Amino acid sequence: MIHIKRAVYAGSFDPVTNGHLDVIKRASMILDEVIVGVFVNTNKTQSFSPEERVILLKEVTKDIPNVKVESFSGLLVEFMHSKECNLIIRGLRAISDFEYELQIALTNRDIDKNIETIFLMTSSQYCYLSSSIVKEIARFGGNIDDFVPEPIRKKVIEKLLIKKVIE
Amino acid sequence: MIHIKRAVYAGSFDPVTNGHLDVIKRASMILDEVIVGVFVNTNKTQSFSPEERVILLKEVTKDIPNVKVESFSGLLVEFMHSKECNLIIRGLRAISDFEYELQIALTNRDIDKNIETIFLMTSSQYCYLSSSIVKEIARFGGNIDDFVPEPIRKKVIEKLLIKKVIE
Amino acid sequence: MIHIKRAVYAGSFDPVTNGHLDVIKRASMILDEVIVGVFVNTNKTQSFSPEERVILLKEVTKDIPNVKVESFSGLLVEFMHSKECNLIIRGLRAISDFEYELQIALTNRDIDKNIETIFLMTSSQYCYLSSSIVKEIARFGGNIDDFVPEPIRKKVIEKLLIKKVIE
Amino acid sequence: MIHIKRAVYAGSFDPVTNGHLDVIKRASMILDEVIVGVFVNTNKTQSFSPEERVILLKEVTKDIPNVKVESFSGLLVEFMHSKECNLIIRGLRAISDFEYELQIALTNRDIDKNIETIFLMTSSQYCYLSSSIVKEIARFGGNIDDFVPEPIRKKVIEKLLIKKVIE
Amino acid sequence: MIHIKRAVYAGSFDPVTNGHLDVIKRASMILDEVIVGVFVNTNKTQSFSPEERVILLKEVTKDIPNVKVESFSGLLVEFMHSKECNLIIRGLRAISDFEYELQIALTNRDIDKNIETIFLMTSSQYCYLSSSIVKEIARFGGNIDDFVPEPIRKKVIEKLLIKKVIE
Amino acid sequence: MIHIKRAVYAGSFDPVTNGHLDVIKRASMILDEVIVGVFVNTNKTQSFSPEERVILLKEVTKDIPNVKVESFSGLLVEFMHSKECNLIIRGLRAISDFEYELQIALTNRDIDKNIETIFLMTSSQYCYLSSSIVKEIARFGGNIDDFVPEPIRKKVIEKLLIKKVIE
Repeated sequence: MIHIKRAVYAGSFDPVTNGHLDVIKRASMILDEVIVGVFVNTNKTQSFSPEERVILLKEVTKDIPNVKVESFSGLLVEFMHSKECNLIIRGLRAISDFEYELQIALTNRDIDKNIETIFLMTSSQYCYLSSSIVKEIARFGGNIDDFVPEPIRKKVIEKLLIKKVIE
Repeated sequence: MIHIKRAVYAGSFDPVTNGHLDVIKRASMILDEVIVGVFVNTNKTQSFSPEERVILLKEVTKDIPNVKVESFSGLLVEFMHSKECNLIIRGLRAISDFEYELQIALTNRDIDKNIETIFLMTSSQYCYLSSSIVKEIARFGGNIDDFVPEPIRKKVIEKLLIKKVIE
Repeated sequence: MIHIKRAVYAGSFDPVTNGHLDVIKRASMILDEVIVGVFVNTNKTQSFSPEERVILLKEVTKDIPNVKVESFSGLLVEFMHSKECNLIIRGLRAISDFEYELQIALTNRDIDKNIETIFLMTSSQYCYLSSSIVKEIARFGGNIDDFVPEPIRKKVIEKLLIKKVIE
Repeated sequence: MIHIKRAVYAGSFDPVTNGHLDVIKRASMILDEVIVGVFVNTNKTQSFSPEERVILLKEVTKDIPNVKVESFSGLLVEFMHSKECNLIIRGLRAISDFEYELQIALTNRDIDKNIETIFLMTSSQYCYLSSSIVKEIARFGGNIDDFVPEPIRKKVIEKLLIKKVIE
Repeated sequence: MIHIKRAVYAGSFDPVTNGHLDVIKRASMILDEVIVGVFVNTNKTQSFSPEERVILLKEVTKDIPNVKVESFSGLLVEFMHSKECNLIIRGLRAISDFEYELQIALTNRDIDKNIETIFLMTSSQYCYLSSSIVKEIARFGGNIDDFVPEPIRKKVIEKLLIKKVIE
Repeated sequence: MIHIKRAVYAGSFDPVTNGHLDVIKRASMILDEVIVGVFVNTNKTQSFSPEERVILLKEVTKDIPNVKVESFSGLLVEFMHSKECNLIIRGLRAISDFEYELQIALTNRDIDKNIETIFLMTSSQYCYLSSSIVKEIARFGGNIDDFVPEPIRKKVIEKLLIKKVIE
């Protein structure tokens, strides 16, 4: 009997960047199934709604067969239980909050000792990329071609420019 | 004549965690008197009121005779002057914002050159623990047994679950 | 024909500190012209208005002939294009968010590959200084003599104490 | 057809510690096969010969069926090619040289872009453990019970104490 | 009955710098007795013999009555037992190997759980100072006035210049 | 009268890498003259002789008119005095020993307060590159095409492979 290796890659993805997509692709080659979990945080205002974020992620991962996208709220650990999954994927960037990453991973292991976090290294060209940088640039009409996957680029710009006008 | 070694361990303690208690115990063994100072920051919304945070701290430190708990507002340095105390206790965690710690300590020394900061190392089992992690987990009904001292665990959960319902 | 070396030193300067002034002086000795760019961020509440921040900066730099002060909004890269300038000055402090600095610098280079960031080291006596520390201390009536240039010290205290009364 | 997920966990293991064993166990639960690769570095003097290090590792991993132990010299990437393997396992400790880890991982990816590094988090109780600390303590007759797996503890002490006498 | 608070400040002190002296002075004001322990490491070549290092330290601390200087070999923890002391003093510099400090402290606590490490913050003017920098500069005839206490400056220069000639 | 902006970029360059060359090119565009200073450290064994390292550097910089290459021994500060130069260039990599960089820069400023260090950011593709990694790979016959400038690649491989045979 073969045990399926299934992992969750959770985050806000507000919006998904080339750095996120890079991690998803790497994870999809190591694991049998990767569930991208869009975290719905009612305490924090996001630029894209959870539904929009799921749609953008589905669009950029549609050619990777073993990747699924879902949203979740509450504790990540409980989402994982509902998916019968005990592996978490995290991307490590040269310029990242390494301490924060370890804190999250150790806490999750503490809540459920069977939970294991797998860190994968983002490509060095995305080592400084984050959703907030994408939003900062798009808001002022800057070029985000290097930062956001092509299929969703137009949607991201529209959303963020529309938002600017409303302010 | 014996000079009393008295130190202040200041923070938000919103709420006190096992990591804080670990530092308080270590400090109480090195110094003659430890004043736990609950910082009342009117600019920041806290989950527990200053009075609640003092009560929780008093409950978990009631068996340590040389520990006192008080709240204060304004500059830490002035609170220390009012207590005739020139030593500050800070906990160092493997996963902590070390730079931030030094910044605070150097600034306090700059405001009053007689003020000295004593850093004690938290137990490695609490090296990733913070009040905000406790709140994050308790809010979603997760298990906080490893994170919060037993005597106050129930109160912490009640408070944070009640808060969730109100939202 | 001599090519003018012109650089922008951008920031919030809310308010300018001795640390900022230290970087400005160092930059003015290396470059032909230094433009101090006060970033107007409509998303973030500042203690001083953009106009006030420009006035304070002009006051403390009035004796450095090759320094100009201006405010700007939008992307730094576009402000630089309008000034025909491709050099950014950043101050490095021993206690600074080095990763954040690199992230900003790499992103700016990515938006325009001709943009170069020059990091200068702040004097070690200002290695832990920031505008928010100045505000924190001034708000509670603490002494800011070591942190803020003399000519503007009075204005900074008045502004922040007035603010406190309003609260 | 099922593709076997095989990974190499390489190092000096001079000697293997509880921290190494912790990583090996975690890796063995995620991957189909884990090859522990003992690096034979002729440029560096080690306390244990490559043969001894392999024997110690085999002893402590004998109950984990999908773990193999081998020594190798030369480039790790070439050892991996010979094993038809493109996954590297690395342990991340809260107190580790994170930058060094990324440097190694990025270099290996640069030599062969198909090589992926999987970072797993060591248990927090071993977050400060290293072979050199074990040797430092054992050399002076200190207690290494918490640091070295039980089955090999005696051999490690004998080796290092003998070495001390020779010096 | 009054319990004496006694701490060990251990290191190579090859040679003692103004940074070390700064830590010793701060420690002597907090504790009843400070034992400066010169570590005799037979595995590492030092510029000054253990005896010389003890003499230099005694010279610069002769006016601080509660400071003693001794050399020791073997495990620090055993030296502490022999002195009936369970407190270790370490200096924290803005630019220091913070992870290494924690590693040492956690290991010592692991060997003997009663051992506590107290970190004190060096003055920011010495935040980048180390014995090896002093030696590097003195070896080439550079000025070490800001780095080494006045009473021993001449001896340090003589020693290191003599060494250079021999090479 | 125009004051010439001259800077020294010092290092071991054993051998020069694409990362070094990237910094040299960036510096040559900001400054009027860049002196690449090859540090001759008699205390440390290098793979390439000082003469060889100068030749390799001259070869890869021959098309940049305002770059000169020289070797020096002793204190960098004295080399700079002899060149009538008070600016030091350093490359900052995302994965670099940032603390070490600041330590060097602060020490040099302390020896001569007129000395200023300019940090430039290496391209992110070279953010993990160092001479020792190049040597490690070349020694075992690995591919160094991405790491070493084309004109000198052959010489570097010959040198390091020859060295291997001798061992």
